[in-house]
Amino acid sequence: APVADSARTWLVIVLTGLGIGVAGAWLDVLVRWLGDLREGRCTYGFFYNQVACCSGLDPGEVCTEWKTWSEYLRVSSILGQSLLQAWIYIALAIMFAGSAAVLVVTYAPYAFHTGIPEIKAILRGYVFDAFLSPWTLLIKALGLALAVASGLSLGKEGPLVHVSCCLAFLLSRIFRLQHNESQKRKLLAAAAAAGVSVAFGSPLGGVLFGLEELDTFAFSNESDVLWRGFVTSVIAAVSLQYIDPFGTSKLVLFEVSGAVGDTWRAFELIPWMLLAIVGGVVGTLLIRLNAAAAVYRRNSAIHDWPVLEVVSFAALTGAVCYLVVFLRVQTSELVANLFQECDATKGDYHGLCNPTALWHNVFLLILTAAVKVLLTAWTFGMMVPAGIFLPTIAIGACFGRAVGLLTQGLQRAYPDAPIFSSCPPDASIRCISPGFYAVVGAAAMLGGVTRMTVSLVVIMFELTGALSHVLPIMISVVVSKWVADALGRDGIYTVWIAMRRYPWLPPGEHRDSGQTAAQIMTPAPDLVVLRDGAPRSVAELLAFARAHRFHGLPVVAGEDDMLVGFVVREKLRAYLERLTTEEPDGALNADRGWTFVRGAAAAGGGERVDLAPLLDPATLQLRKDVPLQLVVNMFQKMNLRHVLFSQEGRLTGLVTKTDIVWLLNAHSPHAGQLAGEKVH
Amino acid sequence: APVADSARTWLVIVLTGLGIGVAGAWLDVLVRWLGDLREGRCTYGFFYNQVACCSGLDPGEVCTEWKTWSEYLRVSSILGQSLLQAWIYIALAIMFAGSAAVLVVTYAPYAFHTGIPEIKAILRGYVFDAFLSPWTLLIKALGLALAVASGLSLGKEGPLVHVSCCLAFLLSRIFRLQHNESQKRKLLAAAAAAGVSVAFGSPLGGVLFGLEELDTFAFSNESDVLWRGFVTSVIAAVSLQYIDPFGTSKLVLFEVSGAVGDTWRAFELIPWMLLAIVGGVVGTLLIRLNAAAAVYRRNSAIHDWPVLEVVSFAALTGAVCYLVVFLRVQTSELVANLFQECDATKGDYHGLCNPTALWHNVFLLILTAAVKVLLTAWTFGMMVPAGIFLPTIAIGACFGRAVGLLTQGLQRAYPDAPIFSSCPPDASIRCISPGFYAVVGAAAMLGGVTRMTVSLVVIMFELTGALSHVLPIMISVVVSKWVADALGRDGIYTVWIAMRRYPWLPPGEHRDSGQTAAQIMTPAPDLVVLRDGAPRSVAELLAFARAHRFHGLPVVAGEDDMLVGFVVREKLRAYLERLTTEEPDGALNADRGWTFVRGAAAAGGGERVDLAPLLDPATLQLRKDVPLQLVVNMFQKMNLRHVLFSQEGRLTGLVTKTDIVWLLNAHSPHAGQLAGEKVH
Repeated sequence: APVADSARTWLVIVLTGLGIGVAGAWLDVLVRWLGDLREGRCTYGFFYNQVACCSGLDPGEVCTEWKTWSEYLRVSSILGQSLLQAWIYIALAIMFAGSAAVLVVTYAPYAFHTGIPEIKAILRGYVFDAFLSPWTLLIKALGLALAVASGLSLGKEGPLVHVSCCLAFLLSRIFRLQHNESQKRKLLAAAAAAGVSVAFGSPLGGVLFGLEELDTFAFSNESDVLWRGFVTSVIAAVSLQYIDPFGTSKLVLFEVSGAVGDTWRAFELIPWMLLAIVGGVVGTLLIRLNAAAAVYRRNSAIHDWPVLEVVSFAALTGAVCYLVVFLRVQTSELVANLFQECDATKGDYHGLCNPTALWHNVFLLILTAAVKVLLTAWTFGMMVPAGIFLPTIAIGACFGRAVGLLTQGLQRAYPDAPIFSSCPPDASIRCISPGFYAVVGAAAMLGGVTRMTVSLVVIMFELTGALSHVLPIMISVVVSKWVADALGRDGIYTVWIAMRRYPWLPPGEHRDSGQTAAQIMTPAPDLVVLRDGAPRSVAELLAFARAHRFHGLPVVAGEDDMLVGFVVREKLRAYLERLTTEEPDGALNADRGWTFVRGAAAAGGGERVDLAPLLDPATLQLRKDVPLQLVVNMFQKMNLRHVLFSQEGRLTGLVTKTDIVWLLNAHSPHAGQLAGEKVH
Repeated sequence: APVADSARTWLVIVLTGLGIGVAGAWLDVLVRWLGDLREGRCTYGFFYNQVACCSGLDPGEVCTEWKTWSEYLRVSSILGQSLLQAWIYIALAIMFAGSAAVLVVTYAPYAFHTGIPEIKAILRGYVFDAFLSPWTLLIKALGLALAVASGLSLGKEGPLVHVSCCLAFLLSRIFRLQHNESQKRKLLAAAAAAGVSVAFGSPLGGVLFGLEELDTFAFSNESDVLWRGFVTSVIAAVSLQYIDPFGTSKLVLFEVSGAVGDTWRAFELIPWMLLAIVGGVVGTLLIRLNAAAAVYRRNSAIHDWPVLEVVSFAALTGAVCYLVVFLRVQTSELVANLFQECDATKGDYHGLCNPTALWHNVFLLILTAAVKVLLTAWTFGMMVPAGIFLPTIAIGACFGRAVGLLTQGLQRAYPDAPIFSSCPPDASIRCISPGFYAVVGAAAMLGGVTRMTVSLVVIMFELTGALSHVLPIMISVVVSKWVADALGRDGIYTVWIAMRRYPWLPPGEHRDSGQTAAQIMTPAPDLVVLRDGAPRSVAELLAFARAHRFHGLPVVAGEDDMLVGFVVREKLRAYLERLTTEEPDGALNADRGWTFVRGAAAAGGGERVDLAPLLDPATLQLRKDVPLQLVVNMFQKMNLRHVLFSQEGRLTGLVTKTDIVWLLNAHSPHAGQLAGEKVH
């Protein structure tokens, strides 16, 4: 049986990898088609996107099969054309976003937002299976495609992690894996890695994301967590590459071909430092704006009209983006163009390579970044699936490209300045690569928003292929995190966890001034305790178990109230219900007595029901004068839900995970302000 | 003070990064010079290596300044030339290796071997400061250069990690960091990452090595461990790149320029699978041979003649390597050539690119690999600093190149076979890149020997720059680890830890058949316990503390022998010695009574010495019927040294880390067979 179990576990892992690879690829295809539909259609087949429609042409041949809506509908006046295009563009945005919101609100409210805060909490022990239901899987995937295609300022990365976890959970149900919570978490960790792997085409980045952001190591020191994540990631990436949704047969999404192989020069560290500081400051600003927007939404009338909110904001986004030329295309296309070096053979993206339009371009880039910050701060939290990675990358890339253009302009204006002496004397050779500055800017901005380090660097260079430039990327991430940490200590996911008050313990050593557990524990007199034999009959005990909402109850016995153990309420209730209804002499059972004391039932001739097997056998008992730091440390490291305190065998108190979460989140300004919403 | 402390910590971190970067660069320079010295010398300056000696020439110009020894000494007969060259080659090998061994044996016995098993143990709580002494630092660095230059089959990677840790430890002493064991470990973790970063020019790989192999996450869930490792790694890599010992201004050591950018074809997975299996099998074989050699050395007369052993083996290695042409150069040069694609402009390395010499080359490569396996199995464990990474890479690269050549030969012989249909029809375009096969082979072999996964992949592509081929590397590492794990569960470092019986707990969930702690604990009657007031005077207590060798003792008091706490013996001894000698009324103190019971000293009017502050405040007390799995889990996760068991306030038993180490190492065939050597 263990071999069969292990084989089934591996089957689920492999299928999850395959499934999320295929799902990710088809999502890309769907998004591309829906996105292109906002501009026009293919004359010979409605379901072709622009690239597929125009494929098979010789170089230089003009694509006549793809028509914009005004061409297709034969509108000839220029005013009519632009009005029609803008109208269809915005109308479809509203339609897509509205459908996504309706789907989410109606069928799967848990499918909104990114999902990463919840996955983090689940991986650290929060039991929240509704979050991983098949409905959520379906709605999140479908809604994600609609939301991305609608042009709202959001990405698909976080939601893909959620989709991947839902898929793994569904598969583990289908193959009837008999697993406990800990095994379930390990499976989800591997699935999460695969999700990132597919989202960025970054198999290593996926594993590291699991390690760093999801703390998959913290809940288990087993190397097989890392190992499974690695395997799932690889399988997902292979199946994505096999399907090859972009037709490039490459995993690298935004290749910075121009910059790779070039060396960089020491003076460039100055603009890169600047970008790192901008990343830290703007990243923190984005987190604050987003938290403020979420709290405002929660406490205002908007909260009752989620679909209307999404529809109006999609209209606003569509209108604004149609005006700002860089925002009109999909965010991924914008990022790809910003990362691309200027190259005469590849065409110029909206005049970005025109050296005479330097100030115009810089202004436009900073405007784009500013608009994107505002749009993203509001969007991330609406009732649609939404990831924050891609918008953040776009914001950072805009700043980066702007700084790169300025530096390049400076160097072209003063080629003989001493600081530029390391540039090649031949002015026709490029010295500064603004495309790579965009990469640095994106990395710094991601560092400021997510506070990740290692996984970020890996994702960035798996995204761009800029391996030779790993040091500048690392330095900018380091500085950006330093700056951001000085301005506010939590990353965006941690802020959301604190706002929703999920039972998630932030890592990091807890320091206090020598408190003991006694100062935080609920003392025994204030606890609801089960006294052995106190409600006399099983029926009364069942009523008691139904009446309370606690996770579990300490059980005491005897005249001295000696601590016997801890019983999980749900387990007790289920057992007693089975005992009183399903068994043949259920009604009789309901009247019997009961005991938790081991051996007492047998000693009493079986008159009383023996509940001793229900007791939690691993119950830790500590003395109440144990240092609080040690208790916090135990909760952090060992994934406990509660610790009992006893003195000479008598219960003195109880500390639950919730107590520790409150303790560790006390510093967070918005702590708990979104708690108790639908997503509980 | 906390700010100043933090600033000093960061200063130490930055200086460690800088220092190890500089040290690594100079080691490279030294090794290169010593290595070249075995073949000849520079006419205009003794201290120039061959590349430096011949620099500044125009392309095509012949370097006349560098002379082989026979040229320099004007030996004209061909027989005389080859005898002289061989003689000097072997004599210098003996001299270098002998000096390294003498240095190690005389001044710093802890400087032998790789150091990684010890660092692993230290990072998991083993206190072993002698291993990090300044002498060890000096001797290990110097001895490493000599050992590598001597041509012994060893690499510099593991020892550099050790050197880096020694450096961090020294700096923390110089800057008087007031730190406890846990902070020391965090610092060492960062230093270890920097060591790998410099050894491979792989800043990310360093961080991941720390994570995966050294379990830096397991002992602390603090993200600042990752973060500090990241910063140190970057600084080390930057300073290495700044000094630029190879004059390439690149971090990438073995660039596989030919393969990058090429796509790979699905049929290539077959030879790669084969390589992965070879890697797993040969890797495990190498581990077994190495363990057997170490045990044999320990139990034979060789053990008493370490320098003689090194000298003889260096002579043997020199003689064998002089005969096998691929082994005559330094291992790093061999690897660089094996990773290199054939390119008409770059010259042919010993006829490796000659298609007519296919079978000759394959035979030579497999012979090289086999010789290298035998040499490495014996070398890794002699009394010289020695890393196993580079030899393993070389072995794997030989196999890989051989398989690559065979595949290429097959494709050239049958270009029209259906399996090769994905190759370009034009035969002049390369379809199969044997250089990249060597990379795959090296990755697979490393996987088999070290059982690392993620960090290995990162190191491999930071080493080679083959980012576009990350998937094949990942797949081969996955398969190789699968195969190797099926043949034997521990990697080379874990085997050495078990052989030396370091107090290191293997990660991984411990499963048993429902045992409780009672079955492993030493019961109270068998324990040496300190009874409050039992040796009457402080002097007697001091004698007691000096007489025992335990780490610490449980303290009980009162008629009921109630458990009061746990006292660390060394702390008690130091305190009592200070009390009886340094204080003015020391002699009087020696006669006073003492108590560990809190408040008892004050209650007694200060007549007795109050030892309560010495008690370990964080002492965990568990009940003896707690499941053994939970206890093992607590030891693994919380870095405990001992757990006390009590029942109703009375001591029932004690479990120490050593007990758990014995329990978890029971399966290892060579467990403890090297324990109790000089390195204890």
